[in-house]
Amino acid sequence: MSKNGQKLQIIPLGGMGEIGKNMTVIQYDKEIIVIDSGLMFPEEEMLGIDVVIPDITYLIENKENVKGIVITHGHEDHIGALPYVLQQINAPLYGTKLTLGLVDGKLKETKFKKSVPMNIVKPPATVQIGSFTVDFIRVNHSIPDAVGLAIHTPVGVVCHTGDFKLDQTPVDGRIADLHKFAELGSKGVLVLLSDSTNAEREGYTMSEKVVGTTIEEIFQKAAGRIIVATFASNIHRIQQILDSAYKFNRKVAVVGRSMVNVVNIALDLGYLSIPKGLLMELDEIARLPKERVVIITTGSQGEPMSALTRMAMSEHKKVEIVPGDTVLISATPIPGNEKFVARTIDHLFKQGANVIYEAISGVHVSGHASQEELKLMLNLIRPKFFVPVHGEYRHLIHHAQLAKQIGIPEENIFIAENGRVLEFSQDSGRMAGRVTAGKVLVDGLGVGDVGNIVLRDRKQLSQDGILIVVVTIDKETAEVVAGPDIISRGFVYVRESEELMDQARDKVRQALKKCQDEDISEWSTIKSQVRDTLGKYLFEQTRRRPMILPIIMEV
Amino acid sequence: MSKNGQKLQIIPLGGMGEIGKNMTVIQYDKEIIVIDSGLMFPEEEMLGIDVVIPDITYLIENKENVKGIVITHGHEDHIGALPYVLQQINAPLYGTKLTLGLVDGKLKETKFKKSVPMNIVKPPATVQIGSFTVDFIRVNHSIPDAVGLAIHTPVGVVCHTGDFKLDQTPVDGRIADLHKFAELGSKGVLVLLSDSTNAEREGYTMSEKVVGTTIEEIFQKAAGRIIVATFASNIHRIQQILDSAYKFNRKVAVVGRSMVNVVNIALDLGYLSIPKGLLMELDEIARLPKERVVIITTGSQGEPMSALTRMAMSEHKKVEIVPGDTVLISATPIPGNEKFVARTIDHLFKQGANVIYEAISGVHVSGHASQEELKLMLNLIRPKFFVPVHGEYRHLIHHAQLAKQIGIPEENIFIAENGRVLEFSQDSGRMAGRVTAGKVLVDGLGVGDVGNIVLRDRKQLSQDGILIVVVTIDKETAEVVAGPDIISRGFVYVRESEELMDQARDKVRQALKKCQDEDISEWSTIKSQVRDTLGKYLFEQTRRRPMILPIIMEV
Repeated sequence: MSKNGQKLQIIPLGGMGEIGKNMTVIQYDKEIIVIDSGLMFPEEEMLGIDVVIPDITYLIENKENVKGIVITHGHEDHIGALPYVLQQINAPLYGTKLTLGLVDGKLKETKFKKSVPMNIVKPPATVQIGSFTVDFIRVNHSIPDAVGLAIHTPVGVVCHTGDFKLDQTPVDGRIADLHKFAELGSKGVLVLLSDSTNAEREGYTMSEKVVGTTIEEIFQKAAGRIIVATFASNIHRIQQILDSAYKFNRKVAVVGRSMVNVVNIALDLGYLSIPKGLLMELDEIARLPKERVVIITTGSQGEPMSALTRMAMSEHKKVEIVPGDTVLISATPIPGNEKFVARTIDHLFKQGANVIYEAISGVHVSGHASQEELKLMLNLIRPKFFVPVHGEYRHLIHHAQLAKQIGIPEENIFIAENGRVLEFSQDSGRMAGRVTAGKVLVDGLGVGDVGNIVLRDRKQLSQDGILIVVVTIDKETAEVVAGPDIISRGFVYVRESEELMDQARDKVRQALKKCQDEDISEWSTIKSQVRDTLGKYLFEQTRRRPMILPIIMEV
Repeated sequence: MSKNGQKLQIIPLGGMGEIGKNMTVIQYDKEIIVIDSGLMFPEEEMLGIDVVIPDITYLIENKENVKGIVITHGHEDHIGALPYVLQQINAPLYGTKLTLGLVDGKLKETKFKKSVPMNIVKPPATVQIGSFTVDFIRVNHSIPDAVGLAIHTPVGVVCHTGDFKLDQTPVDGRIADLHKFAELGSKGVLVLLSDSTNAEREGYTMSEKVVGTTIEEIFQKAAGRIIVATFASNIHRIQQILDSAYKFNRKVAVVGRSMVNVVNIALDLGYLSIPKGLLMELDEIARLPKERVVIITTGSQGEPMSALTRMAMSEHKKVEIVPGDTVLISATPIPGNEKFVARTIDHLFKQGANVIYEAISGVHVSGHASQEELKLMLNLIRPKFFVPVHGEYRHLIHHAQLAKQIGIPEENIFIAENGRVLEFSQDSGRMAGRVTAGKVLVDGLGVGDVGNIVLRDRKQLSQDGILIVVVTIDKETAEVVAGPDIISRGFVYVRESEELMDQARDKVRQALKKCQDEDISEWSTIKSQVRDTLGKYLFEQTRRRPMILPIIMEV
């Protein structure tokens, strides 16, 4: 029973209307638990930004109340903000062994100093966090050891699927804990939060085993070396590659920093089973005949600095692509990476490789549930209220439509936004106000110091470059004693545009002269005169609008 | 018969290993005809660039020999470079009525002054251009009036498909001229150049009529206003939208500059048949009940400034999206545009529209032949030599594999590059040297004045911005008389980083002092000292590498 009519609050701080920086607050009677702390990769217009993390002002304001941070699985969009969040918030972490192993690796990588209590949970299990009782429930996903959560509160049960699919034939034999979800549904769930990533996709998501079959077929046919690029965290995929290598009497080398990292962590923690001698160092494996070699590498997204891309561009120090190589890209391009991936494929073909990629069915499957699985989950849980999460707006909308189809009344479905407070009693739910939420941009060591003005400047600089106009003026007489000099970067290739620059200097001189004639001595006015005159002239001549920066020095 | 063993040369100047800026030179006995003159949209790393056109140095060097430019159809990647090419080359144009109508519109738009002879050809037709006899052969494509070509030369026949698909039920009832291709094949074709865009796709490309059926179904169900975004040049698509509007008693307004332009040209030239009174002005149509309104608009690629995007963002002056609107995006995102399109869809959903897009089958079909059609074309033509064209490298490779499958010997298939000279006699073909070819970047009025240095600067500016360090030095004493001043743009938000900037100034002072102490007076050395010292400091503090521009003024 809830105390004195206390309400349960669910506040998404990230992951709503976006795929990335997942973070959800569950709050009751001043106690908070946080689900996930993820990062997002920058949008195209966020020039120079490395990563984006959620604005956690709300958590900082309520830091005494945060009883724990529960992590559903080890993907960057669920753990990537932890190094920043844990700087601000003292709270123990809860997660499965692999998840916390990856978190630990991440914290070490960022040279994180504080000691953070980490509670390893092995599902099925129930943990007490503050006054919340939290069930950890196994789900299938593109990384092992992913969980959904059931959070028991005095108002009712909140069920959060985490990222999930329902794989009936998972590689590790451990299917999602359908029985637990069914049991929860039977007893009654107040609110379901469920993964919307694939809410647009009809049918079922294929089993990871399908990819294993495809890999085996490719290994059977390949005559030369085999190079496979995939996501480092997809341990089951890696296991299947290793299995095929073993079956066809090949040895395996692992390439790429994140791939080596994750494979090591997974090996240490027992998530990969590798026959002795199967793995070899790159230098060693190079001595074997090509038909006995497999290389597992990063770069499935065509990332410019990744191992596969460097191989494709003939820039990798140790691996050179040669005719006869089979390259398998076992991944789909994440939206925004399509052109990078295509370019990598083209370069691999040019080097003479036989490249196998997404055009061929079965080289990759998604880790997220499609419509039939989403409806099944909704029907198992039978929640009173439904909140689609983990999706861009159209995904949330499609997921809401599925919920309507299986009979959840429209007024019990909430399409939320980051920062929106959802408030529930045992029999009612509503949108109730907002808390601070948003994007914090990380650029190098700077967290949040790059804002709209800086981004706007970067945008302008990127399009047409910059012209700097320097002039030195005598303090007493206001006469020009040096300059005007004009320096440009990113505007035109100066040696071929000397005449343009000469004319530009003349225009500046005229503008300065005009100011002097009109007895204008305010620097800001002089500067804006220079900027306007020069800007107009350059636009007429070139149809470009570089940034113009007049600098006046006084002596 | 060929004169004195003269060889036929085929030289692609664009469109090989890329989709865009198509241009192919056919040369025999010093006579040249050029097929297409297209542009390409800039790659992501070509910051600030508007369009990319082929390097036509080779044509300029041989301008007296250019007998004509033949245009296969009116898409930008086939006509877009004409305003630049025709500045340099005097040659008559050949094309169908709609194609040359669109070229004419394009030249007017760019205020092109020269008069260019335009020869309208109505297929099936044969035209003499120099000593070449050129057949114009109807094909199906996503724009009406597209043609393939058969160029009869003394060495043999060169067949160029243009961009094509084989639509068995085209909207205008005019199927590709299979009989002509068959006849050419029977008589013997030396070289086939064929469209590789969809060489990765199995099966057949669906008929444009399929989209008509989908549109009709959507119109039947829609209760409120209907807004359809598609490619302006897809006249058959527009015809089908108009037909559905008429059938369901709706009126139509056309929005977006390029849409209005193309619809007007197509209307003038008789490519659209519109019942009187069906088209209305936007202001007028706004007075009708919503269920009687259709708006056809640009913006199917989520282009930031397009009409649909502005509607989605509530920034369009005349059209506001309201709940009840049905928005149909009848197009697939061109690679690179996926995120823009997704964002537009999300915003439309947020405004309350029912958005129908590519997730639903039949809202769009491709204009390019899939594998079965490509093989059919190869089998109809039965060329001695085959050159896959119009594709990125992997498309050319896949197309080559199809040609092998239907029995063309591998040594008779040429994967060419831009600038590669292909040389043919009656019974032999080979790669024979290279001519100048490449990308010319157009930025505003500048054609080719933005090169690698400027792009590299724009890249650096876009990532971490710029710091300008200005110092004024006394000519005689080499003492600093003003500054150092530091101005930054796109680096950090200065007001929040005053301490950093103070420290930076100190570092510059130290560097200057050190130079003075060591009696270094060469400006270049002083500048590089300042750059190094400051760069190192800023990287330590921020992990960013802004451009640093030291400027020394002398008085």
